[in-house]
Amino acid sequence: MGAAARPFRLPVRVYYQDTDAGGVVFHAQYLAFFERARTELLNSLGFDLAQLADEGRILFLVHEACLRYRRPARLNDLLKVSAEVAKLGHASLVFHQRVERAGELLVEGEVTLALADRERLRPARMPAELKRLLQA
Amino acid sequence: MGAAARPFRLPVRVYYQDTDAGGVVFHAQYLAFFERARTELLNSLGFDLAQLADEGRILFLVHEACLRYRRPARLNDLLKVSAEVAKLGHASLVFHQRVERAGELLVEGEVTLALADRERLRPARMPAELKRLLQA
Amino acid sequence: MGAAARPFRLPVRVYYQDTDAGGVVFHAQYLAFFERARTELLNSLGFDLAQLADEGRILFLVHEACLRYRRPARLNDLLKVSAEVAKLGHASLVFHQRVERAGELLVEGEVTLALADRERLRPARMPAELKRLLQA
Amino acid sequence: MGAAARPFRLPVRVYYQDTDAGGVVFHAQYLAFFERARTELLNSLGFDLAQLADEGRILFLVHEACLRYRRPARLNDLLKVSAEVAKLGHASLVFHQRVERAGELLVEGEVTLALADRERLRPARMPAELKRLLQA
Repeated sequence: MGAAARPFRLPVRVYYQDTDAGGVVFHAQYLAFFERARTELLNSLGFDLAQLADEGRILFLVHEACLRYRRPARLNDLLKVSAEVAKLGHASLVFHQRVERAGELLVEGEVTLALADRERLRPARMPAELKRLLQA
Repeated sequence: MGAAARPFRLPVRVYYQDTDAGGVVFHAQYLAFFERARTELLNSLGFDLAQLADEGRILFLVHEACLRYRRPARLNDLLKVSAEVAKLGHASLVFHQRVERAGELLVEGEVTLALADRERLRPARMPAELKRLLQA
Repeated sequence: MGAAARPFRLPVRVYYQDTDAGGVVFHAQYLAFFERARTELLNSLGFDLAQLADEGRILFLVHEACLRYRRPARLNDLLKVSAEVAKLGHASLVFHQRVERAGELLVEGEVTLALADRERLRPARMPAELKRLLQA
Repeated sequence: MGAAARPFRLPVRVYYQDTDAGGVVFHAQYLAFFERARTELLNSLGFDLAQLADEGRILFLVHEACLRYRRPARLNDLLKVSAEVAKLGHASLVFHQRVERAGELLVEGEVTLALADRERLRPARMPAELKRLLQA
């Protein structure tokens, strides 16, 4: 494995826009929370998704996602959303992700991403520097 | 003026994804409903936004939007969302838009769009054929 | 099994609001498309989610969701989103769901729902009539 | 008037989920950004929207919103979203709101909110303590 030891954690506030008429966070919104944590993990390593897309012509495409919902998050909760590299390939990677509130696990899941070139959406190799940093 | 006489109307169902913890449709979502009606109006005239962007290199950018909220829409409501050209310029147009439920006005507003070329986001002229159809 | 033989299919248009800067539908949005199809399936059987929540004090909570992304949907695509009951329990059910474009599979997945009473979010029994209809 | 002298500013990162196939932030999303800034302004004053809804039985309903779009925000931009009380009534208030990137104005607008009791959605008086704090 050799994947990143400690998960990256992003604080995320729950606003009305994240909730639904059931009074809790809308279930698809956790996938969006997951994406925020992955993006900020990359930012923290010096990788900017917009630059990767514009200059490197590389996109991360979500290939698979599984979520397990244990407890609902609610309006104005302050959550911690984590992203941790669970598996690192040449053209893909798997993140394990969790949403917690005050140490309590609310939602967890795995997201598999494939790297693709921007124009043809075909598989692309991970830049060596990014791979090195994700392994660290 | 000389704009389209009858408004175009699109049926829109309210799902959990459209609502918030207040039990009603989240206020920003009406702007998204408005966009659906404008897009389907263009589709009904034979204009495909994706084709306009890819082949014509033209985007519609929202330049201004005003919404007045009168009554809330709720989960599972079946709404009618209308789009009517209120003003038609060389590189811009104004839509008057309404959201109704069983003939009752819930939300209305105006959305001003500017045509822009896709690469530089500078003003672009409306295709003559589109202008002709919107005036009809 | 004994679940509904033919999947329910809902036409869904892709608007700008569904897409992201990668030029394709944002990956979390498919969970929202799935929800639309499940809701319309229930509507077609005479079950209204808003009424179930208000009068029956029953919510459907998403308990687990898995999605496999095969090909991206794009702006203005007209999709078919299907929902099919794959497993039917006393207080839960599993849907198999697919997103297709002109017969081509784009995204598929499973969504497990648990019935819960609205106030305490504890497990609740499925109304017998609903169970009967979903089995038909 | 006597409204708050300095606007409250919230940093907001632009993620894929905020953008559309035009490569820029989806126009309705700025209303959601505005809401985040208003909510955090209230939080910073010690008012929690969830508590106001649950205990005070009070909701803030958006009554009117106008937005003027000047320049597009893009993927991974770090924005500042401000909320400033422009007008303060007994049962309503108007916020002036701006989205800036590195000091440059991208979007601005006004949002009028009405206080309503949660059950019947009828106008409600602003809690005196909240009014006092918003005037400070």
